[in-house]
This record gives sequence, C-alpha cells and structure tokens, in this order.
Amino acid sequence: MRIDAVDFFYYAMPEILDVGDGSQDLLLVRVQAGEWVGWGECEASPLVSIASLVAPMSHSACKPVRDSVLGQRLDGPEDILRIGTLVREQSLDQLQADHTYSGIDMAMWDLLGQQRGEPVWRLLGFTEAHPKLPYASVLFGETPAETEAKARAIRADGYRAAKFGWMHYGRGTVAEDAAHVEAARAGLGPDGMVMIDAGTVWGDDLAAARERLPALIAAGVTWLEEPFVGGAIDAYAALARESGPVKIAGGEGAHTFWMAKHLIDHGGIGYVQIDAGRIGGITQAKRVADHARERGCTYVNHTFTSHLALSASLQPFAGHAEDLICEYPLEPRDLAVRLTRNHLRPDADGLLRIPDGPGLGMQLDLDAVAPYLVDVEIRVKGKTLYRTPQR
Amino acid sequence: MRIDAVDFFYYAMPEILDVGDGSQDLLLVRVQAGEWVGWGECEASPLVSIASLVAPMSHSACKPVRDSVLGQRLDGPEDILRIGTLVREQSLDQLQADHTYSGIDMAMWDLLGQQRGEPVWRLLGFTEAHPKLPYASVLFGETPAETEAKARAIRADGYRAAKFGWMHYGRGTVAEDAAHVEAARAGLGPDGMVMIDAGTVWGDDLAAARERLPALIAAGVTWLEEPFVGGAIDAYAALARESGPVKIAGGEGAHTFWMAKHLIDHGGIGYVQIDAGRIGGITQAKRVADHARERGCTYVNHTFTSHLALSASLQPFAGHAEDLICEYPLEPRDLAVRLTRNHLRPDADGLLRIPDGPGLGMQLDLDAVAPYLVDVEIRVKGKTLYRTPQR
Repeated sequence: MRIDAVDFFYYAMPEILDVGDGSQDLLLVRVQAGEWVGWGECEASPLVSIASLVAPMSHSACKPVRDSVLGQRLDGPEDILRIGTLVREQSLDQLQADHTYSGIDMAMWDLLGQQRGEPVWRLLGFTEAHPKLPYASVLFGETPAETEAKARAIRADGYRAAKFGWMHYGRGTVAEDAAHVEAARAGLGPDGMVMIDAGTVWGDDLAAARERLPALIAAGVTWLEEPFVGGAIDAYAALARESGPVKIAGGEGAHTFWMAKHLIDHGGIGYVQIDAGRIGGITQAKRVADHARERGCTYVNHTFTSHLALSASLQPFAGHAEDLICEYPLEPRDLAVRLTRNHLRPDADGLLRIPDGPGLGMQLDLDAVAPYLVDVEIRVKGKTLYRTPQR
Repeated sequence: MRIDAVDFFYYAMPEILDVGDGSQDLLLVRVQAGEWVGWGECEASPLVSIASLVAPMSHSACKPVRDSVLGQRLDGPEDILRIGTLVREQSLDQLQADHTYSGIDMAMWDLLGQQRGEPVWRLLGFTEAHPKLPYASVLFGETPAETEAKARAIRADGYRAAKFGWMHYGRGTVAEDAAHVEAARAGLGPDGMVMIDAGTVWGDDLAAARERLPALIAAGVTWLEEPFVGGAIDAYAALARESGPVKIAGGEGAHTFWMAKHLIDHGGIGYVQIDAGRIGGITQAKRVADHARERGCTYVNHTFTSHLALSASLQPFAGHAEDLICEYPLEPRDLAVRLTRNHLRPDADGLLRIPDGPGLGMQLDLDAVAPYLVDVEIRVKGKTLYRTPQR
C-alpha cells in the first residue's frame, strides 16, 4: 500500500472555557492507503498542528510533516517506524511536529490493523491484552466538600481509583491543599487509590512541593503527579528521594521518547504517564512502555479526550500485566463522547477491556460530531494550503 | 508601558531549496508599547509560529501565545521574566510556543533598550561587552577539494575559525568523512580552529560516532557538533568520555532552559550552542549562559539568519570573556542580508564587537525586504485570525 491521503479535522465545542479540560476540542486524523482507512487523534493545539502539516519548507530539516508521509509505502510496522524517523529528520526544526505526527502514527497503526484484521496491540507484538483498572480522572471541587462529594460519586459509580487535579491545588495554602486531599480520601473510602495532580504548579520549586508531602503521605496517596515542569529533572529526583510511599508521577508533556526516558532514568519517577497523542504516537509510547518495564517504573496512559484516543493510548502497554491502572477521562465534553459510536466502559468487575476488533477497534460517528467541525482556511501567497475537508 | 501590538512578518526567498540553509526564510517580530518599538526574530517555521501566536484556546494551558503578551505591562526586565513565565504556563500544551515566543522576548528586550537608551547586554546586567572571535559557519563542499577551497577562502577572508557541517558528512564512509575533515584542516591552516557539525546524523548510534573520532582527533578539531539527536544524553555523555581533546558540542535544538541544562550537566558537552530564536529568547539563553559558566562549559550562539538574530544571540554571553568564539553565518541569503541596514562585521583584528547602540543596535530596512514578504491569511470559523501586516 501507499499513503494516498492524510487529512486533519478540527472539532471544537461552541464555547471553550478557560479551565483545565482538554476535551473541549480535538484534532482527528485520517490516513488513507488504497481502499483502507485509519483514524488517529493528536492531543495538540488543532490550528498549530494543521499549520505544521502543511507549512512551506524552510530548509531541509524544517519541512511540513505531510511531506514525509504522503506517498510512502505502508505494508507493515517497519514502515511506520521508517516514516516516523523520516518525519523527525525532515521536520527536526519544526517544534510542533511531534504533536502533529502523533495522530498520523495512530492512524497508520489503525489502518494496518484494519487491513490485517488484527488489533493494534497484536501488531505491536503482544500476545494478550490485559484488562486495566481505570481510574477516574477529574478536577478538584471548588471546596473540600465539593471534592469529597465528587469522590463519593466516583466510588458509587464503581471506580476503585481516582485522580484529582488542578483548579486551586498548589496555589493556595498548604492547609487548604491538605483539606482537599483529605476530602478526596474521605469520599473515595479507605481502600480506594487516590492520586493527586499538581499540574506543574510549582515550576521547579522543591520546597513548595515538599511542604505538601505530609498531607499526601497521611492520606495514603498513590502518586503526586507533575509537581514540576517536565524539564526539572533534578527537582523530580530530589522529591522522589523524600516522598516515601507516595510515588512521583510525570511525563505527560514528553514529546519525545528521550524526555520520558530521562524522567525515568534520572528523575526517579515511579509512574510514567505518556500521552500517545503528543509523544509521536503509539510507536514512541510503546518504546517508553518497554523502557519503563525494564526499569521497574509503572507505565500509565495520559488521556483526556475521546475513546479513539483512549484506545490508542492503551495499546502501548496492553500486554504488560504489571502496568495495571489506566487513566479514564470521566467528564469529557459532548464532542469527545459523540466522536465514537462504541465506548470503552468498565465491565462489572470494574476492569476495562482493550478492544479486540481490528485496528483500534473504534467506530467513528462523523455525523454526530459534524456540528462541531471547525472551518479553517490557510492561504499562503494566494494559494490555499489547507481547507477543512468536508468528509 | 503596556504592550499594544505584537506583529509577525514572514519573509522568504522566492525559491526554498532542500538544503541545510536556515537563512532562506525568516520570521520577524515587532512589539509595540506606546511610542516604542522593538524587533526580534524567531528561528522557527514561520507559518507554524504564526498559527501558534493566534490559535484559538484549547483549554487553560493551551492558549495562543498572543494572549499572554498583549496588554501586559512592560516597564523593566522583571516584566519580561513575568511574561515569559505566563506564556509557558498558559501555552504549556502548545508545543510550538517556545519557538514562537523567542522572537517576542527579543523584541521586548530591544524595545526596553530603545526606551532606556541602553544596549540589551547592559540591561542583562553586564558591565562590558567583550569582543568575540567569529567562526565562519559553512556547509561542507560536495568533494574534499571543494571543502578545502572553501576553507582556504575563509582563511583568506581573515577568519581564524570555521565550522563545516551537514551535506554528506556521516552518511557515507568513515574514509570519505575523514577526507573532508582533513581538507578543512588543510584549507584553514595548522593554527585555525576547525569545528565539525554532524547535524544529528547518527541518531543515538554511539558506534557510528566513535568511528569518526580518530580522524577528528588527528585533524585537531575543536569540537564535534551534534553527533546525536538532542535527547540522546547518555550517548552524548559516553562519546564525551572517549573524545579526548575533541569536545562535544550541542544544544541548538534546545527549546527550554532545562534541555540545555541536561546536556551540560548530564551529557558532558564542552560547548553549549544556544539559538536564542528557539529557546525562548534572550532571557532563557542568558539562563543557559550563566549556568554553563558555573559548570565550566563554553557558551556559543547558534545563528543562521540575519544580523538582527545575530545581535540578539550575542547578548546572553556578551559579558563572558571566557566564552570567546561566536557563530557567524557566512553565506546567508539575500533576504537575511537585506533585513538590516547595518551589519556586524569583524574588525581589522578579526574580532566582532557587539553593538553599543540602544536595544539590539540594529536598524531594519523593511523596504529592502518588502519583495520577500509572504502573504498569509488564516481564517477560522469565517473570521480572519491572521493576515500579513502591511507595515
């Protein structure tokens, strides 16, 4: 097969709120080769990624991502690896390229799976897809009482694990933060897994993070996520040495295998959280999952949007029984819900099964999201480089 | 002052060749505050950075770069620091943002310098700007004879140092590569500084890089640049342990202070090469320069475009006498030459003086580059988010 077309579709909710909810828009990717079609999703700024797909060449290492994909042979996983290497070489100086390419990589895996009638995880070399324990991923409440109520509702829904993030955490006093953490524990019950997401709030300020440790330890928190910006590896390592039973988690911002590797090898994190929609797709995410396994670091997906993205994000560690838990976006917007006809729901035992169908196992419903399609046109020197495809 | 306007101007040569020459296009940035104007330049894909400036918000940590700059107070260096932090927080998930913001940071320093009648290096806290020894930065020839002729011509022009890069280096045989290195040395003479740029050609393949070391050592090469992709820190460290008198150089791809810091602290590089047009501007470049000084690593600018970019790239280490050499693009295209009325030329002693005039000390000539202005229009939901400003 040869890749005949790569199309990007930008969808957005009518109103985008200034909150930490990444499901308000999405960038859907379609790859076509002969009669076969595959779908993927970038976890990225849609307009910037569209520009990165089509931007005029600046020089030999700053080409549009499309140029390294269109017309390429796609007969097996080795072609996906080859195309990824080509993109990284030819778009080396185009910073956005890793985000842009992530959805293309997913779509190629999906396409290959469709064509072979195999789930992607099998193409990745796994013989079995182990069920995952989904943790509900939500924002803190405005007040501790609201946080506790959220946790209680999650537990009532059958979840045994939940992550609370952002909002005011880390920005107020240590006592206020502690009250929210205690509330999360109280609501989820003594045997639930509670995770806390600081969303890089402390930059590289070790002291600010350290002050929050006693409350996290007292509440039996499983991990503290992103205390620092992704690059602050020395701060990560220092905090990990002091955090005792509370593991440090991070990695969602990694846009290369290397960034994740450094966090694992030098940053001392206990959980590496990879967004397959940012790191270069399923291929690079799988490299991280394998490396993490070797180093005794637990791999977890980072996913905030649709169940297409969720399925793609589960493939890289589908065969690793030890990497038990998975992120499960609990409050996605209507757009992210409607994108797929089928959804990945926890079974009665509370576990999530990774689709066994061909490719990523998801059926899209473009009619349902049609009202959310964003009309974009990019013109350079009077020539239209991009216009939103109608289908 | 308040920032009233941020404008991006995309210029390009009529034909962009598929070669490693970054001076074929440029992205000029203008910042206005009251009656004052400052200019900067992103070393970035112009269209992608324009999109990043104006892209609709996806969520609270994925906003257009413009939103964190427009309307902000700009009364002193502390405001530039504050605005940079805001951009990194509010555009955390917009990968391109570091490249996009780099030119804005430069323009704000330029503006502040204009307003205060001070060169930027003085605003950065330096009391003196030490002259730099420029090295001519060129591509290898197609043949060793051509490389030698280039080196000879450079020497005849008065340069005592030259860097040869890319083309076929690292892609052919070890013997072919050695012939080019020997030719460079022969042409530049026994006392010239010869640097070799591998342009990440070996990915993270330590063995491939190691094979080239004997020829580099024999030719008395000062540094081997970018043997590996920027993330392959362990490979950098391993090669640095084996390279003896030949230092390893890298860092041009760093788009955060942290990436450069890791290359210095953990990658064992002897020269850190920072592109102020990528790493977040003069502010972040200065952080690297200061950190490098503490660690005994030599700071060098990475610059491939205009003398506006060159002046900006020299400010962060202007006051460091120990960081003697500087990159000096020798073969820029007409566009990059015409952008400024004045140019930074080595004096009779072969040394380059950093401008003493206010701001970056460069006078732009927009009339001269007007024929190269690229017309861009970005429309989203029927609304024009960006159109090339006419002035």
